[in-house]
Amino acid sequence: MRSPFREKIVIHSVPQSSTHYKSKPYFRVIFLKEIYLDNSATTKVCPQAAQKALYMMTEVYGNPSSLHTMGYLAQKEVDAAREAIAHSLSAEKEEIVFTSGGTESNNMALFGAAKALHRRGRKIVTTTVEHSSVLAAAQVLEKQGFEVVYLPVDAVGRVSVEQLAKAIDAQTIVVSMMAVNNETGTIQPIETVQKLIDRAKSPALFHVDAVQAFGKLPIKVKKLGVDLLSVSSHKIHGPKGAGALYIRKGVRIVPLHYGGEQEKRIRPGTEAVPLLCAMGEAVRALPNMHEEWQQMQKLNTYLRERLAGMPHVVVNSSEDGLPYILNVSVVGIRSETMLHRLAEKGIYVSSGSACAKGQKSHVLLAMGLPQERIESALRISFSRDTTREELERFCEELENADQTLARSR
Amino acid sequence: MRSPFREKIVIHSVPQSSTHYKSKPYFRVIFLKEIYLDNSATTKVCPQAAQKALYMMTEVYGNPSSLHTMGYLAQKEVDAAREAIAHSLSAEKEEIVFTSGGTESNNMALFGAAKALHRRGRKIVTTTVEHSSVLAAAQVLEKQGFEVVYLPVDAVGRVSVEQLAKAIDAQTIVVSMMAVNNETGTIQPIETVQKLIDRAKSPALFHVDAVQAFGKLPIKVKKLGVDLLSVSSHKIHGPKGAGALYIRKGVRIVPLHYGGEQEKRIRPGTEAVPLLCAMGEAVRALPNMHEEWQQMQKLNTYLRERLAGMPHVVVNSSEDGLPYILNVSVVGIRSETMLHRLAEKGIYVSSGSACAKGQKSHVLLAMGLPQERIESALRISFSRDTTREELERFCEELENADQTLARSR
Repeated sequence: MRSPFREKIVIHSVPQSSTHYKSKPYFRVIFLKEIYLDNSATTKVCPQAAQKALYMMTEVYGNPSSLHTMGYLAQKEVDAAREAIAHSLSAEKEEIVFTSGGTESNNMALFGAAKALHRRGRKIVTTTVEHSSVLAAAQVLEKQGFEVVYLPVDAVGRVSVEQLAKAIDAQTIVVSMMAVNNETGTIQPIETVQKLIDRAKSPALFHVDAVQAFGKLPIKVKKLGVDLLSVSSHKIHGPKGAGALYIRKGVRIVPLHYGGEQEKRIRPGTEAVPLLCAMGEAVRALPNMHEEWQQMQKLNTYLRERLAGMPHVVVNSSEDGLPYILNVSVVGIRSETMLHRLAEKGIYVSSGSACAKGQKSHVLLAMGLPQERIESALRISFSRDTTREELERFCEELENADQTLARSR
Repeated sequence: MRSPFREKIVIHSVPQSSTHYKSKPYFRVIFLKEIYLDNSATTKVCPQAAQKALYMMTEVYGNPSSLHTMGYLAQKEVDAAREAIAHSLSAEKEEIVFTSGGTESNNMALFGAAKALHRRGRKIVTTTVEHSSVLAAAQVLEKQGFEVVYLPVDAVGRVSVEQLAKAIDAQTIVVSMMAVNNETGTIQPIETVQKLIDRAKSPALFHVDAVQAFGKLPIKVKKLGVDLLSVSSHKIHGPKGAGALYIRKGVRIVPLHYGGEQEKRIRPGTEAVPLLCAMGEAVRALPNMHEEWQQMQKLNTYLRERLAGMPHVVVNSSEDGLPYILNVSVVGIRSETMLHRLAEKGIYVSSGSACAKGQKSHVLLAMGLPQERIESALRISFSRDTTREELERFCEELENADQTLARSR
């Protein structure tokens, strides 16, 4: 049966606005129903957040550092956003530092903590499946003389508590681990880390990259004993270009940026006011986490069931992972081939991390998957806007593509 | 005569939206005609830029690194913004790296160049009147063993070419100088620097902080022989949180951030797409520079004439500076006192740099101004929206305030 959607194709030209500077007008084929299943790469900005950004750009446009009314009003709005983020993490407002996003937050945490504690030890413990912004920072620190331990993971991408316990010792100054893996949805045992640090009498600061977990898993920083925690706006229906680093009260890290008085000098530079306030709105607009989780679980289960009927499809994600993400391999068809085929049908998924454009997944490699599964991996990631109907159509198109592209198998 | 504006006061409450998280509703007194004369601190976002940001948040919300259509469209828009900025500087598209703003651009230039060239020499030449993001970075580099020469300035804040020539030698690896001072509008002799570097057979990279000059003075990077140049979005009616660093083709600097493939790895992290594209629109919306200059010159001359009639007012800005900025002292009345008094009347000026909230101006200090002039300094800064009528009312209120507050004199 042909999908009812596929017949409703409209071709409309995007007007040659001033945007397309010196470039030719282009045509965009828009399906009446585009299906966006790449929400771990980025999400659509929710109306509340978009409106807030617009408001801050055109109405409350003062510089928060200005001493007059316009500055005060902007500062008040930024503070309200800070409070919303703090509240969502059960943190204090003063513990939230705004950044330009997850990468900066992760860099700031790793470099900042390592530099602050370099006299107490030289050992950093992280995992093989971190985001590139943690791994790349760790590599730079290695070149600077730090010893970095990259913990291995099991077949579903999980670090073992035993390995963690073995790695963390009195010389360890930083432990950095993500809460949820961005490619597979695997949930790491972050709740065990602080205890292990205490047990080892380690001076280590504990950093959690919570970019994929934020807004999806309940995170209580105090309960977790986290010292530093990174979050990003654009994974939770806020705009791209904003993020935050939770820095536990009393923890001192060395800044990445130097300049004015903003963010208590830990992150100077005029605040990205429209984005920060929009991020605050996005946090406030987050639905009930428990209910959304159940909704996602249903979608995830449905998708798994449908895919189970496709002989070439293998699921790479753990069943007890974050239900928002399902990583699968369509063995025999290269990720990019499938991705482009689906994109032609208006269905958007990814081959792995967006930040590693086109590269082979280091996460699936660390999980020990065979080459053919790594090369054919697809990440399907949901948001609160995702519907069962969309997944139905995705499955249909995946099957079609699998059959059409099978020649290359 | 009472100003016709002052009687038209409306008091309206800002609705208690979800914005004011846990906070009480507040009331804002809005004058029918607020007069914003703090455009060097930040500007109102122009409609073109604001609309573009909104469009990128809600329509083209893909991650530029995503390989599907939504990613491609976002990438195309970011590239168009990059091209607009490159074009405005007579640079190549490939030479523009997006950042989170002027502070990051300046930090990236100084740290990046110093680290890249540390084997060629240890000397950095800059001035005493740079922005805090240059000065603070220079101080950090000093602690790391670099020698930093801070050139003095004359009574209007200008560096002498002789001093520059004397300072730049074969051991100099970085020369960093702003094109226009943010507090006084003083224009520095940046056009002489590259010749001096060549003459000294110095390996130095030449960095220009062009945050205040961008869009106001014609900047042709090739002609100036600049290697690195910082610009910011929010000083040219683009949103806060975006900026760029021009990096001349062939110049290698060490990045500040590490992670994904974005910005050719020189500045990884998901691009702040809405802001970057809005910045591109703001650049495209810039009026003819020459005409705007003349308009500003007229406003500046008018203001100087009016202020000349006020016995306690001394002008600190040079007559041949950027006409957008006029720095004056109302001797005997502390900057903050005057600033708040004017703010009560809906007139917004600043006491100096917004980034140095409330601190005494290091710029006026370097110019050798007496304490009483430094303590009473006000910066009035124009934009294309500023009118003569606004300046009239500003002068009236300044005179009123001067008389009322004279008791403290």
